[in-house]
Amino acid sequence: MFSIAVIGAGYWGPNLIRNFRSNPAWDLVAVCDLDEQRARKVVGSRSTVEVETSVERLLARDDIDAVAIATPARTHAPLALAAFEAGKHVLVEKPLADNAETAALMVSAADAAGKVLMIDHTFCYTSAVQRIRDVIAAGELGEVLYVDSTRINLGLVQPDVDVFWDLAPHDLSILDFILPGGLRPETVTASGADPLGAGKACVGYLTLPLGNGGIAHINVNWLSPTKIRQMVIGGSRRTLVWDDMNPAQRISIHDRGVDLRTQAADAARREAVTVSYRMGDVVVPALKETEALAGVATEFAAAIEAGRAPQTDGRSGLRVLSVLEAASASLASGGPVRTDGATVADRELVA
Amino acid sequence: MFSIAVIGAGYWGPNLIRNFRSNPAWDLVAVCDLDEQRARKVVGSRSTVEVETSVERLLARDDIDAVAIATPARTHAPLALAAFEAGKHVLVEKPLADNAETAALMVSAADAAGKVLMIDHTFCYTSAVQRIRDVIAAGELGEVLYVDSTRINLGLVQPDVDVFWDLAPHDLSILDFILPGGLRPETVTASGADPLGAGKACVGYLTLPLGNGGIAHINVNWLSPTKIRQMVIGGSRRTLVWDDMNPAQRISIHDRGVDLRTQAADAARREAVTVSYRMGDVVVPALKETEALAGVATEFAAAIEAGRAPQTDGRSGLRVLSVLEAASASLASGGPVRTDGATVADRELVA
Amino acid sequence: MFSIAVIGAGYWGPNLIRNFRSNPAWDLVAVCDLDEQRARKVVGSRSTVEVETSVERLLARDDIDAVAIATPARTHAPLALAAFEAGKHVLVEKPLADNAETAALMVSAADAAGKVLMIDHTFCYTSAVQRIRDVIAAGELGEVLYVDSTRINLGLVQPDVDVFWDLAPHDLSILDFILPGGLRPETVTASGADPLGAGKACVGYLTLPLGNGGIAHINVNWLSPTKIRQMVIGGSRRTLVWDDMNPAQRISIHDRGVDLRTQAADAARREAVTVSYRMGDVVVPALKETEALAGVATEFAAAIEAGRAPQTDGRSGLRVLSVLEAASASLASGGPVRTDGATVADRELVA
Amino acid sequence: MFSIAVIGAGYWGPNLIRNFRSNPAWDLVAVCDLDEQRARKVVGSRSTVEVETSVERLLARDDIDAVAIATPARTHAPLALAAFEAGKHVLVEKPLADNAETAALMVSAADAAGKVLMIDHTFCYTSAVQRIRDVIAAGELGEVLYVDSTRINLGLVQPDVDVFWDLAPHDLSILDFILPGGLRPETVTASGADPLGAGKACVGYLTLPLGNGGIAHINVNWLSPTKIRQMVIGGSRRTLVWDDMNPAQRISIHDRGVDLRTQAADAARREAVTVSYRMGDVVVPALKETEALAGVATEFAAAIEAGRAPQTDGRSGLRVLSVLEAASASLASGGPVRTDGATVADRELVA
Repeated sequence: MFSIAVIGAGYWGPNLIRNFRSNPAWDLVAVCDLDEQRARKVVGSRSTVEVETSVERLLARDDIDAVAIATPARTHAPLALAAFEAGKHVLVEKPLADNAETAALMVSAADAAGKVLMIDHTFCYTSAVQRIRDVIAAGELGEVLYVDSTRINLGLVQPDVDVFWDLAPHDLSILDFILPGGLRPETVTASGADPLGAGKACVGYLTLPLGNGGIAHINVNWLSPTKIRQMVIGGSRRTLVWDDMNPAQRISIHDRGVDLRTQAADAARREAVTVSYRMGDVVVPALKETEALAGVATEFAAAIEAGRAPQTDGRSGLRVLSVLEAASASLASGGPVRTDGATVADRELVA
Repeated sequence: MFSIAVIGAGYWGPNLIRNFRSNPAWDLVAVCDLDEQRARKVVGSRSTVEVETSVERLLARDDIDAVAIATPARTHAPLALAAFEAGKHVLVEKPLADNAETAALMVSAADAAGKVLMIDHTFCYTSAVQRIRDVIAAGELGEVLYVDSTRINLGLVQPDVDVFWDLAPHDLSILDFILPGGLRPETVTASGADPLGAGKACVGYLTLPLGNGGIAHINVNWLSPTKIRQMVIGGSRRTLVWDDMNPAQRISIHDRGVDLRTQAADAARREAVTVSYRMGDVVVPALKETEALAGVATEFAAAIEAGRAPQTDGRSGLRVLSVLEAASASLASGGPVRTDGATVADRELVA
Repeated sequence: MFSIAVIGAGYWGPNLIRNFRSNPAWDLVAVCDLDEQRARKVVGSRSTVEVETSVERLLARDDIDAVAIATPARTHAPLALAAFEAGKHVLVEKPLADNAETAALMVSAADAAGKVLMIDHTFCYTSAVQRIRDVIAAGELGEVLYVDSTRINLGLVQPDVDVFWDLAPHDLSILDFILPGGLRPETVTASGADPLGAGKACVGYLTLPLGNGGIAHINVNWLSPTKIRQMVIGGSRRTLVWDDMNPAQRISIHDRGVDLRTQAADAARREAVTVSYRMGDVVVPALKETEALAGVATEFAAAIEAGRAPQTDGRSGLRVLSVLEAASASLASGGPVRTDGATVADRELVA
Repeated sequence: MFSIAVIGAGYWGPNLIRNFRSNPAWDLVAVCDLDEQRARKVVGSRSTVEVETSVERLLARDDIDAVAIATPARTHAPLALAAFEAGKHVLVEKPLADNAETAALMVSAADAAGKVLMIDHTFCYTSAVQRIRDVIAAGELGEVLYVDSTRINLGLVQPDVDVFWDLAPHDLSILDFILPGGLRPETVTASGADPLGAGKACVGYLTLPLGNGGIAHINVNWLSPTKIRQMVIGGSRRTLVWDDMNPAQRISIHDRGVDLRTQAADAARREAVTVSYRMGDVVVPALKETEALAGVATEFAAAIEAGRAPQTDGRSGLRVLSVLEAASASLASGGPVRTDGATVADRELVA
């Protein structure tokens, strides 16, 4: 069992606190927040979990193995760097940092300290996304030809970030997790709109070419009255549909597709004709309903225990951040933006 | 009652034939197709509807008031021009022509002949789209801020056209029909992918800025195993969702939205907070289930009778075609393309 | 090719007319109705299909092989008996007759004349029901343990019949079609309500014990604002769900169930515990979308051609009618009613 | 703030513990269970909530105002009676007791002690059921004509009780809550099946006549692979559909119905004709997503504070129990069973 403190008792902190409290691999020792009342309220009455208001005091303690950071993005890097200096393992909320440059420093510092840096890409620990990764890795879909992801709902217009930085990290981290080789698009094209005059994009579209002629497209929207969280992953053999709002059938695998050789023959004719495409069965795999954050806590402990990188390590957080920065650049310039810089940073870190 | 002949007994022709046959405003006199056997099969046994194989002979007849053209796109212009010359009214399948230039000639010829030129934008005659237009015109949605349209299914890889030309005409014609002032985007941005190596885009995305800072986005895809036909129309007052695959609830109007004044106040704070956005009721209007094509036939007769332009006239077909041409140009260039040329053509025609 | 006449151009007749007109196995010669105008309107203009107002004249014709009867139920028996006397094959709308006794005469008369008597249990010719029958026959579900059928919508309060006689024939004919051995319940229990004071049950429930300790339950309702057509067929190995309002997924086969041996062990404990029931994958078979009535027409011709009983013959119509009569008796008596009489009648007919 | 102890840390206890812990109206002092390890595990580490193994010691404490009982049904009565004797308020899990006779004793004892007896009919505290009660009370549905409730899923075959006693209490308690005047059927008819040979009904149907010629029907099933929780409440003015598996649209109110006067006119004709029934809009009210059990805890405190009966008091628990006992009697006898005894008991208690 490892001991941990959670830093930040605001929006997401209470979820971390609840999960580390109940996870058998962890002993939640303390909650740290500048606002002592807020921290006390989250800890609740009749509890001996300690409340701290000073990060310095917290990090100076010897009885704490790790910290989970759930503070505003711009504070992630200084807190994580201080934690590594103090010899702690670190779990960070997404995004890893508010820019890729400081995020790269975090990755380097974790390596230098020999400590685990994990990014809380929560969705990657749902049974749905874990299954999707397995299905792709096993070749059941064949080659991934396109990914179409929609994440829209009536959401909070964030004061600090636009809809890309708020919602797209989910889609990007999932893509990074499920695509063999991770998320490494050569270019990023973003378009958006601010029809409310909120001073930032509230509706956004991201287009990422996949290496093989394929394409990934992400649709994020804060203004939709209906909540859609759907990802279609089209492969050369089968296509997978993930509908996260349908608990009875989150994932379905469709044995349907177009046979191009048939098409080629038909192409000789001038008029459109109905080709014989595959229209096979659909399989809905049984999935366990689990809380993803419990999986995050368990993976964090397992990575520390084994001295290995977690499934969502700092580098995956950095790749996601690089795409977000390119998206912002594309939105400003109106055209596709290359992600070389980010990729180079990633490659240098690897080397 | 007007008399009509249908030219082309291929893919769509039989639907026109069935509807003109049963519509009390029409007398279907003849079906014309180069392939006599095909025409006879569609007409069926024990019928006195005539079969013609020569367009010239057909157009020379005095007992025919109008023709409906359901032949390949490249033949629309010559057929329509000959029909106007012969003094017939003309209904044309979408797209109006295979390019905007010849389409403009068709519009001019109809004007010169004083005959009706109608484009069969079938979806515009569904009770759903008619209702959407009424709802927007009545101001129930407020100002339209964004439109997000998805039209994907496992479709036929067409020999002649890409997925934009095959599917997007539906979305574009609907936008032209429901937006006050019609569809007149200043720029068009298209991105697509051909992951099968079919020689043309099979997956495509279109972005059209609306005049007021808003945005319209269209997602078309031939490779999706599931069929989605959904359009979200976000307004400043309410948002309308049209889900055409859900007959029990095709249209829902959501009294939900973000109150920006509330947002402005919150923006002063650094951390994200939950704003009090409207989360009102949803209304699902009762719609009649009717066959849209019956509405097309009825409107064609009504326009001829009244000597007025039909709800979907040649000009709307031309506007749709102009956007499609700009989309193709954008796909080739990789960036936004202005639609001025088309707009000019349209304006000249109007003048 | 056989020649046929349709008798009755009212509610359902036009559907039969349309299908026999377009089916390559049939030549629709005439439509017969007391109301000549109604018949002419259905036949339409520019058609040489004849209109008859006299059944006698119609049946006297030598050029007609078969008749399809779509008149009120009480006229089915006299018309069919006359048709057999005239040497015609007969297709009858459901119900076979307005009582089981005259229905049995129809079955006997068909046998004596050596002609085909087919009942139009349309749903049995949908690809969904055909597949369900195949799945059960192949043993994929194991033994059928329960059937739960719901058929509710805002329907027409019929002047002649209650909701059982209007809607339940669909469920009963489907059960007769898919259950190995057909529908032969020993008892029938019906309960109903007439909350509108319409003078007849508008809401009804039917319970039919299956031979093996299982149960079939049917829920019919004219007053429901939503339309539900769902049948759950629970088997000892798998369970099939048929949701006819979901075209994208009409049938799903669930590899889920309770393992009773596990239960027996748990039963020793006093408190409820979670048992390890099977929670396997779901398979959605690909089905073709076809018009069921086209299948009816084709099967009628095939049965005549081969001199065999059709898939839904007079005996199946008689079994359905027997259950309906028992249901009416149960509704009147308030308790279960045995169906022996009907079963005997059926058995005598067979012998 | 009141102090409380939870008795029983088994299946449902942890949910009560979590809710009383976090509810500002309550101070959770202790958890009592014969199995000390189980209780400690639920309380968790770093907590000062006490663990008790003796109910006697627990009830003897002065610092406890109330107890929540989540033990097997047969122990509810003795525990509650002892608690009232010790001057505590009592919340009991459903069912109130294992038979109506001892349940009536509990109600009397609470009255005599002047303490609150509340039954945890959890569903009644969902925002959906609260809204349904309000809608009916406001007359929006008119008179309730029929209720059709379906509660099926692949469930645990319980060792102690059949499917009626396991699942139907939910439907019955909801009916008791939403129907003006509560649930007071004159007769109960049950039918069930045990196709697995489990020694008890696993599939069950309940029919309850409503006073006005209407009917309530309940469908419960442990063997269904799909989970359905739906209730249709048909009224003379509107019909409400509650689909608890559809969070985006749990409740919809349909302005649809049959106009009987129109029917009466049509009834003069012999053939069925399409009547002009109302086919109005559907309204989906906005509902807050809240945890129902939090509402239970809050209502329990509010009733104690105000010295009033809670919304779900002992009498409602007794009414539900009376119907369940009548259902068991009906299942044994095969016909309708009168509920007079129970009603009398209820009436005597009231007087």
